[in-house]
Amino acid sequence: MEHALPSKLLHAAVDELSRLPGVGRKTALRLALHLMKQPAADVERFGRAFITMRNEIKHCLVCNVLSDEERCEICSNPRRDRTVVCVVESIREVLSIENTQQYNGLYHVLDGIISPMDGIGPNDLKIEELLERLKDGEIKEVVLALSTTMEGETTCYYLYKKLCAYDVRITTIARGVGFGDELEYTDELTLGRSIKNRQPFVPAVG
Amino acid sequence: MEHALPSKLLHAAVDELSRLPGVGRKTALRLALHLMKQPAADVERFGRAFITMRNEIKHCLVCNVLSDEERCEICSNPRRDRTVVCVVESIREVLSIENTQQYNGLYHVLDGIISPMDGIGPNDLKIEELLERLKDGEIKEVVLALSTTMEGETTCYYLYKKLCAYDVRITTIARGVGFGDELEYTDELTLGRSIKNRQPFVPAVG
Repeated sequence: MEHALPSKLLHAAVDELSRLPGVGRKTALRLALHLMKQPAADVERFGRAFITMRNEIKHCLVCNVLSDEERCEICSNPRRDRTVVCVVESIREVLSIENTQQYNGLYHVLDGIISPMDGIGPNDLKIEELLERLKDGEIKEVVLALSTTMEGETTCYYLYKKLCAYDVRITTIARGVGFGDELEYTDELTLGRSIKNRQPFVPAVG
Repeated sequence: MEHALPSKLLHAAVDELSRLPGVGRKTALRLALHLMKQPAADVERFGRAFITMRNEIKHCLVCNVLSDEERCEICSNPRRDRTVVCVVESIREVLSIENTQQYNGLYHVLDGIISPMDGIGPNDLKIEELLERLKDGEIKEVVLALSTTMEGETTCYYLYKKLCAYDVRITTIARGVGFGDELEYTDELTLGRSIKNRQPFVPAVG
């Protein structure tokens, strides 16, 4: 493909697309040719969407989630429970948790997790901003909703040590065997912990 | 995810990306968040690449391939053999054949193949333009390089009937068992034809 893209303009578009994570040059070419077949107005809207997003989007001054306003829709929603804050790595987890429709509190987006391998330390995360939010005493509970990886656990522990200085309940999302998982294929650590932390059986309402 | 994208700007970018073929909403979100992390100048260049391509790219007036000029690099290259034209469905096949470095003639891009199921008939393709190119007698051979699908074969046959009126050799790409294919897994039609059309064995130079 490198040999002879007959158009530099096409080449530039393929280059840009193939810089996206997980998009190879063959896919990039396919997508660029797809765009060539669309009406010019649609391609204009396509290109401008990214430029506008990048230039105009803000981070919520309270919870740091991507937002069109200085205060995001969640933080400014009067029906949300302002006494609980759920700490997450990125906006992606906010969206996942929102989708469950099981949580009505606020969020705090750290913008990453502690990862010495990637050179990310506590000072690279929005931790001070989280502690700042606790100072007026309105928040009674902090839910740590981080990945159960080494980095996630490290970050949880770091946050826990910091949060102990404040008068808040510190909780974490429940760990255990996922719904629909087969015990036989569940890893030993998860299975072991979920037997140890067994809970009263509540029959589903039939 | 639909439940609560906290930013309309992000939502718009995700919408645009998820309109691309083969890109689902989860991937689109991942890509949009990736773009959010890039420098604004890079995102500007990203967005503009598609708009510029769509607005400024041309089709070569001779062979119909996408080109920055009215005459593409291949058609205007004096070292190409102007007596052979290879007929292909789209620019993709031009790139594939160019990559083999085994062909030094010209091309003709049909912009599709005859496909009654998709409502594409001969008049939707650049067939008249191909016949026009044959009129001055410079072209001595037309190579039909279309897919070996039902639609490709139909198009080949249609072109063959049209080309018979001109003083040109009509050839097609060789059909047979691909290099690296296992005979056991080759379909019967291909295998049957390649036994019938068997060729003298030429030992590879050791």
